Amino acid sequence: MTEWQERLAARLEAARGDRPADLLFRGGNLVNVFTGELDAATIAVYDGMVVGFGERRADEIVDLGGAILSPGFIDGHVHLESSLLAPVEFARAVLPQGTTTVVADPHEIANVAGILGVQFMLDTSEAIGLEVFFMAPSCVPATPMETAGAELTAADLKVLARHPRVLGLAEMMNFPGVVHGDPAVLDKLEVYQDRIIDGHAPLLSGAQLDAYLCGGISSDHECTLLEEAREKLAKGMHIMIREGSHSRDLHALAPLVTARAAHRCMLVSDDCHPETLLEHGHMNRILKRAADFGIDAITAIQLATHNTARYFGLRSLGAIAPGYQADIVILRSLESLQVVRVYKKGKLVAEEGECLLPKRITEAKTQLLTMNLEEVTEEELHIPVQGQRLRAIRAVPKTLITGEEIVEVKDHLGRAVSDPERDLLKLAVIERHQGSGRKGLGFVEGFGLKKGALASTVAHDSHNLVLVGVDDSDMVTAANRLRELGGGLVAVSDGEVRAQLPLPVAGLMSAASLEEVVAQTREVNQAALSLGSVLEHPFMVLSFLALPVIPKLKLTDRGLVDVERFAPVELFV
Amino acid sequence: MTEWQERLAARLEAARGDRPADLLFRGGNLVNVFTGELDAATIAVYDGMVVGFGERRADEIVDLGGAILSPGFIDGHVHLESSLLAPVEFARAVLPQGTTTVVADPHEIANVAGILGVQFMLDTSEAIGLEVFFMAPSCVPATPMETAGAELTAADLKVLARHPRVLGLAEMMNFPGVVHGDPAVLDKLEVYQDRIIDGHAPLLSGAQLDAYLCGGISSDHECTLLEEAREKLAKGMHIMIREGSHSRDLHALAPLVTARAAHRCMLVSDDCHPETLLEHGHMNRILKRAADFGIDAITAIQLATHNTARYFGLRSLGAIAPGYQADIVILRSLESLQVVRVYKKGKLVAEEGECLLPKRITEAKTQLLTMNLEEVTEEELHIPVQGQRLRAIRAVPKTLITGEEIVEVKDHLGRAVSDPERDLLKLAVIERHQGSGRKGLGFVEGFGLKKGALASTVAHDSHNLVLVGVDDSDMVTAANRLRELGGGLVAVSDGEVRAQLPLPVAGLMSAASLEEVVAQTREVNQAALSLGSVLEHPFMVLSFLALPVIPKLKLTDRGLVDVERFAPVELFV
Repeated sequence: MTEWQERLAARLEAARGDRPADLLFRGGNLVNVFTGELDAATIAVYDGMVVGFGERRADEIVDLGGAILSPGFIDGHVHLESSLLAPVEFARAVLPQGTTTVVADPHEIANVAGILGVQFMLDTSEAIGLEVFFMAPSCVPATPMETAGAELTAADLKVLARHPRVLGLAEMMNFPGVVHGDPAVLDKLEVYQDRIIDGHAPLLSGAQLDAYLCGGISSDHECTLLEEAREKLAKGMHIMIREGSHSRDLHALAPLVTARAAHRCMLVSDDCHPETLLEHGHMNRILKRAADFGIDAITAIQLATHNTARYFGLRSLGAIAPGYQADIVILRSLESLQVVRVYKKGKLVAEEGECLLPKRITEAKTQLLTMNLEEVTEEELHIPVQGQRLRAIRAVPKTLITGEEIVEVKDHLGRAVSDPERDLLKLAVIERHQGSGRKGLGFVEGFGLKKGALASTVAHDSHNLVLVGVDDSDMVTAANRLRELGGGLVAVSDGEVRAQLPLPVAGLMSAASLEEVVAQTREVNQAALSLGSVLEHPFMVLSFLALPVIPKLKLTDRGLVDVERFAPVELFV
Repeated sequence: MTEWQERLAARLEAARGDRPADLLFRGGNLVNVFTGELDAATIAVYDGMVVGFGERRADEIVDLGGAILSPGFIDGHVHLESSLLAPVEFARAVLPQGTTTVVADPHEIANVAGILGVQFMLDTSEAIGLEVFFMAPSCVPATPMETAGAELTAADLKVLARHPRVLGLAEMMNFPGVVHGDPAVLDKLEVYQDRIIDGHAPLLSGAQLDAYLCGGISSDHECTLLEEAREKLAKGMHIMIREGSHSRDLHALAPLVTARAAHRCMLVSDDCHPETLLEHGHMNRILKRAADFGIDAITAIQLATHNTARYFGLRSLGAIAPGYQADIVILRSLESLQVVRVYKKGKLVAEEGECLLPKRITEAKTQLLTMNLEEVTEEELHIPVQGQRLRAIRAVPKTLITGEEIVEVKDHLGRAVSDPERDLLKLAVIERHQGSGRKGLGFVEGFGLKKGALASTVAHDSHNLVLVGVDDSDMVTAANRLRELGGGLVAVSDGEVRAQLPLPVAGLMSAASLEEVVAQTREVNQAALSLGSVLEHPFMVLSFLALPVIPKLKLTDRGLVDVERFAPVELFV
């Protein structure tokens, strides 16, 4: 007998009752995702697998006293990088919330570090309690208007396709490229023609949507309108209803989940900021939100377990039944959805909100040190006056969309400088991947800083170094501090660092725990407020000022971009 | 651009409306399997694919005047051999009934001709209009109590697994072997561990069922009781509700199909006798039966299209939507379920019950000539008297179960012979695969023949040559006629062949059309009746007298088998 057969033979013995099970759950109520019913159940587990329903001998008996047995929650679409946590810490954060599996799109780290970044995520997400599958990032770089750290070609994607935890091609954001048959996009679609290809097609409709679907795209998580989701569902897309930290669509899409259409829907987070994870949880938070919007708890659990597992072809996940992996969440009740205990492959991994796995450090040597730039000098940030008026970006709270304002230049010795009186602040984006020294300079309104500077290496989608400040000297201090740290967020004033959140993993992720990351996030935000910021999430706004795919005016390392015209524009008008 | 990309690019053009579609269906009502609703729809087809919903330019416009557009029907479990038709003729028979795809288990031909028989089915089902997928036969031979024509080992099954139209491992009939971890069964399960494994587990329940599921088996088509099906569904099995020519379970299982559990159910035929196909149809017949038992038509269609395609991972089948293969059935109405037209990959293949594909002959040279036995002589059939009483099989109408009777021997010159006065007839099973000359001899009650003999090479599961008769001479004539024909069914009296159905393809299938096969079937049955048979389906009863897995007493080429004791027994008592 092979090892596989010996293992199966032992499981069969436990299933038959001829060998004691490892665990027996008694007195629970099972969320049966096949029938959609709640059944009183006794569940036997052996060697990480559910081996049977009903009484059996067992080494350990857990009396549930009427608690709920749910399959472990699955997040079908998440960018781990948004949590600022390395995979091992993300796992520690979400396991106690009932999440046992995620399907991640490592799009952010791929923009910084390419296939090595994706490989890092694969390596550091192996055997961490949480089961982490990946979709291969489809659109790196996102645009030619900025300098990303890397490119993922169809050949790279072919290499990734062979990894056993890569399930398909991640959200195909370049929907015009699919619809119009862009050759580079067709290359990628061909590589993944027999695999799952996730979509990303906000408001795409009619014949354009039809063409997108003909390209082989089978899901969408960007629906924000009920009618939009209805069209996509009727045309065969699996609808991932997103309820992230930032983008939240349940309020609009909950009515989509009818008895007849629920089988085509999933619940996903897309992005999870560390504060959300700490204060509200992960998929358990989303399940509660679903209940708030009138989706019954059993259906919501189906959308966060069985439906997702079936969509991705994860045959042994998403249900509690003989032959399924024993990924089990014990909930106090269906009403509270409160997570009491979490079992992964039959092992107790979390209890009453605490992760029971031993601490593991994301090793510095495996971290991606990606701050490839020379020390920044004040001179680099100088903007010689070339006219009396310039075009400034207007930051708008709670949206990624910006405005464009034509304003008078403040001239200081022939240089255009910040004018906090008018809330006009200097903005810089410095290329940090290739050591090119390339930078874009401009101005932003609406930040509110009265002094000092803020800097970040989280800057979508290319994650260059972005700086905003009243004072060139503080901006330089901020930039160089991040250079030393390997990336992160920092607030500086009067030549001193006031607070910092180091993100040494590719300039995107911390190696610290969720609690530490949240504490540091609060410190840098508090520091930004004390410098006068009028924004609720100043670093988040900063991180999107460099994203040249959302209107109107953005700044990249190549200069200002008029997104509506998808063309570079001059600073001075 | 690769050829694949050029083809996709052209489809995208048609989807966008930048190139005329091939076909546009206007004025139809679409069975939307995603939403479970009926929607007024305009559907565009290009290059075999549905490319969009809504108006577009098209080379041909079909006005449906309110008719129904349904996805092509899929039979998820069928033994093509039961139809007695070679694949190309089966296709001609079922395409006009709306079936566009089947998943076949070539278990019968595998028992006769092993991997070559399966390869024959693969070869002759290529490009025949009907799309034919296969499951690799899991249990060949069925038992060690008889001589099959071949064995399929785990190594053979591994070879089959690589064929692009082999989807998984066919019904695992050896459920005791799974439950108890029989090493040869574990070998097969290991080869198919990441593939679909269909089940076959009549009345299996409790811990035994749990163990079976731990083996990786994911469906069952043998449920005959509602409670049985409920347990299996709740434990994660996909339930294939069978409504074949012989075994019909819809009456019992229809209540299983609730709004919440329908997604786990399918409709399948398992076996389709030629008369059923000609007189009542294929999946369209089963859909009508489902309606008779209160399943609404749209749900029934989901069970015969979308659910089956998803279970087998056939991503572009089972729905009418952009990016799906254009397998479309036009129905007069949901009430009548009458098939008007059938499109396969966008081509009209049947209209008003007529197959429009050009006739194709199953070539004699590719047929499997499997009658490997010497000419049969009367002497071989002689049974020297060795006692005064013998154990006779009792044939029971309308069931596969037989009885055992102890009866007085009729002694003629020291030989035990038939006694039509007492309806006691000689029965013989002659090994026909290996030329071994091995034979089993016995007697059967309940056939009713007054003279002559019947013979068949369809004899489950090993399909040896089975003979029943009043007269040794007629039995020999019958046997040798089948030897000449390469197999089939034959009725003989007074030294003359009265009727015959030649089955030259492995002794199981005809090369003729459905109409011819039905005519010949009626002739042999009529001839059997005229010889005195009191059975409604004498050849079907005959074909199961050699099946040593269903109680009580059966005859194989190795002699009489007491199935309850699973042991050989002597003829004379």
